[in-house]
Amino acid sequence: MPKISLKGQNMPESPIRKLVPYADIAKKKGNHVYHLNIGQPDIKTPEVALQAVKDADITVLEYSHSAGFESYRKKLATYYQKHQLDVNVEDIIITTGGSEALMFALGSTLDPGDEVIIPEPFYANYNGFSIANGVNIVPVMSTLEEGFALPKIADFEKQITSKTKAILICNPGNPTGYLYSEEEMNQLADLVIKHDLFLIADEVYREFAYDGYKHISVMSMPKLAEYAIMVDSVSKRYSMCGARIGCVVSKNKAFMTAAMKFAQARLSPPTFAQIASEAALDTPQSYFDEVIEEYKERRDVFIAALREIEGLEVSMPNGSFYCVAKFPVKNADDFAKWLLESYDFNGETVMIAPAAGFYSTPGVGLNEARMAYVLKKEDLIRSAQILKEALKVYKTVEK
Amino acid sequence: MPKISLKGQNMPESPIRKLVPYADIAKKKGNHVYHLNIGQPDIKTPEVALQAVKDADITVLEYSHSAGFESYRKKLATYYQKHQLDVNVEDIIITTGGSEALMFALGSTLDPGDEVIIPEPFYANYNGFSIANGVNIVPVMSTLEEGFALPKIADFEKQITSKTKAILICNPGNPTGYLYSEEEMNQLADLVIKHDLFLIADEVYREFAYDGYKHISVMSMPKLAEYAIMVDSVSKRYSMCGARIGCVVSKNKAFMTAAMKFAQARLSPPTFAQIASEAALDTPQSYFDEVIEEYKERRDVFIAALREIEGLEVSMPNGSFYCVAKFPVKNADDFAKWLLESYDFNGETVMIAPAAGFYSTPGVGLNEARMAYVLKKEDLIRSAQILKEALKVYKTVEK
Repeated sequence: MPKISLKGQNMPESPIRKLVPYADIAKKKGNHVYHLNIGQPDIKTPEVALQAVKDADITVLEYSHSAGFESYRKKLATYYQKHQLDVNVEDIIITTGGSEALMFALGSTLDPGDEVIIPEPFYANYNGFSIANGVNIVPVMSTLEEGFALPKIADFEKQITSKTKAILICNPGNPTGYLYSEEEMNQLADLVIKHDLFLIADEVYREFAYDGYKHISVMSMPKLAEYAIMVDSVSKRYSMCGARIGCVVSKNKAFMTAAMKFAQARLSPPTFAQIASEAALDTPQSYFDEVIEEYKERRDVFIAALREIEGLEVSMPNGSFYCVAKFPVKNADDFAKWLLESYDFNGETVMIAPAAGFYSTPGVGLNEARMAYVLKKEDLIRSAQILKEALKVYKTVEK
Repeated sequence: MPKISLKGQNMPESPIRKLVPYADIAKKKGNHVYHLNIGQPDIKTPEVALQAVKDADITVLEYSHSAGFESYRKKLATYYQKHQLDVNVEDIIITTGGSEALMFALGSTLDPGDEVIIPEPFYANYNGFSIANGVNIVPVMSTLEEGFALPKIADFEKQITSKTKAILICNPGNPTGYLYSEEEMNQLADLVIKHDLFLIADEVYREFAYDGYKHISVMSMPKLAEYAIMVDSVSKRYSMCGARIGCVVSKNKAFMTAAMKFAQARLSPPTFAQIASEAALDTPQSYFDEVIEEYKERRDVFIAALREIEGLEVSMPNGSFYCVAKFPVKNADDFAKWLLESYDFNGETVMIAPAAGFYSTPGVGLNEARMAYVLKKEDLIRSAQILKEALKVYKTVEK
């Protein structure tokens, strides 16, 4: 029998999805599961986006341009400019989700065996994309104690070798919820310029900044023009995760030429979803104001409720809609499975994403989990209560 | 300034798309361009697929399952079974086009530096997908003189090394239009079993078989159960290229486990397009009967008209909707550019895909081009006439 590749063997199971069979067990037992494990918002998709797809007059569902519809790219450039990002139409390639934008970014900047430095914990699928590209992640540790702020620049410099080609950040952070300050962004910029590295910034949560903090995009920093690669997506901005539309953005011409060849190889991004995404740009500002206010309130009640739990530590995220919490358990993976398989509080339980999968350093984050506050406030309060009650029981059964 | 990867530099420009700027020149001059360069059918997408998207009642456009909607996979399995393919729901992962299915197939079976054997000429984007995966294509030559039939098995065996992990075929062939016979499929099957290789079969043109020839799927050959990986797509079957929905199919459990991890990393295939694709399965048989009859007629008139051209050689394709022709020119790339940039016949010209990009062996196929007979008959006859007239002029200007 033929053997699968080492790559295929080494691909990690998604920490967000690998517990799905356990959730199925909980559901089969008739228990309701609160999904804190995945960043799937319950927020309504803007009507203008959904209606555009209904109204589309299509007789032959054709390929689009490999870079995406010209009309969409133009409108998107205008959107970025309105937000003080220096982005023109020729700087944008529309991709199949932020996922494909990351694949193009890694593929165009790193060869097999090359290294990308990423502050950890990081979005777990960076592992998968790196393995798929045959490249190695070199992590630099950020900690819950410091709210997952940018690690010291010296810590980055210690890891830079001749194989280092890029630094990858997620800002605001998934899973950390941390929003990098202007000072931190400047430090990173100076670092990549000094060492001639690309700075790949996953900015898919750009709008989700709270408490008056301002998101600093790599595309708003003139000195980064030749260094910055921005990854973006409509998934969270418009609660359109199922569209699978994102983009990769850069002013580095050589990079864009390479990325365009990857884009041509897969022909085009999905047409229906591009129609929805283009129309979504007409979403009124009031939609975002309401959504951001809603998430801020969710964060406040959820973090407050979590902090009521004895022995649990969690930082106050100022961006995105995730937090990483340290649980008073030995192993968050075992705890997460137990919550689904063996526990319920009045017929309800909670699904969390064990954080070990968000670290690249083995053995780190074993008692941590990521939670997404993408449910309505009463469900978040309820979820925290279930976790509190569950931990009392788990203490007595933990091996 | 940071440098892009060797991979990014080596990615080929798509031979199908690289002449688009020249087509733009032709169009700016006011000339009509007949697009024979790309397999974008003019056939209408089934109404049932388009209507399903309009009727979809979506309020939150959520991620789907990473393997695709369960309901779609079930219905798709039934479709395959109806066509005598041994495919169950657990053998299917829905992908973003056949392109992504190929990426998952190569990524799950080959590591950087490994080799995949492919009869050439082959679908040009196999080059891009191989480079993206850091793997090497080892070509085995098929020829126009033999109608692009399967090369001798001894030719394959000469190329097998310890790095060979898979053989990749496109059946019926893009760009050749050749449909492998049952005998050829059996030879290939015995070969991969003997050498413990995967047989990856790109069967996206399955329905397009003419003159009573029957398509033999790798999924209909019981002895290939552990060896076969089928790549499929809705693009051509339902004239839904812009949907970007395909699937990867196998009964090899280890392969499916690996492919599923690649699928999880990119979260999910596009939702709108899955809705359309699921509904498309209700397309009545009469649609296919008409479409296949139409393509057969197109082929007949187009090949006949091409054979009227002095010095041009073309084989009679018995599947898909492409043909490869040898032109009486030194370089088909120069000719193709000239057709767009400098020629018109009463305000009309033709765009063809130079075939060199479909070969992996350097210097081969330089005077060949691929043409897709995806236009209506009068346009195909007209296109052949333009080529005939153009060649008369080109003879006098060719360098």
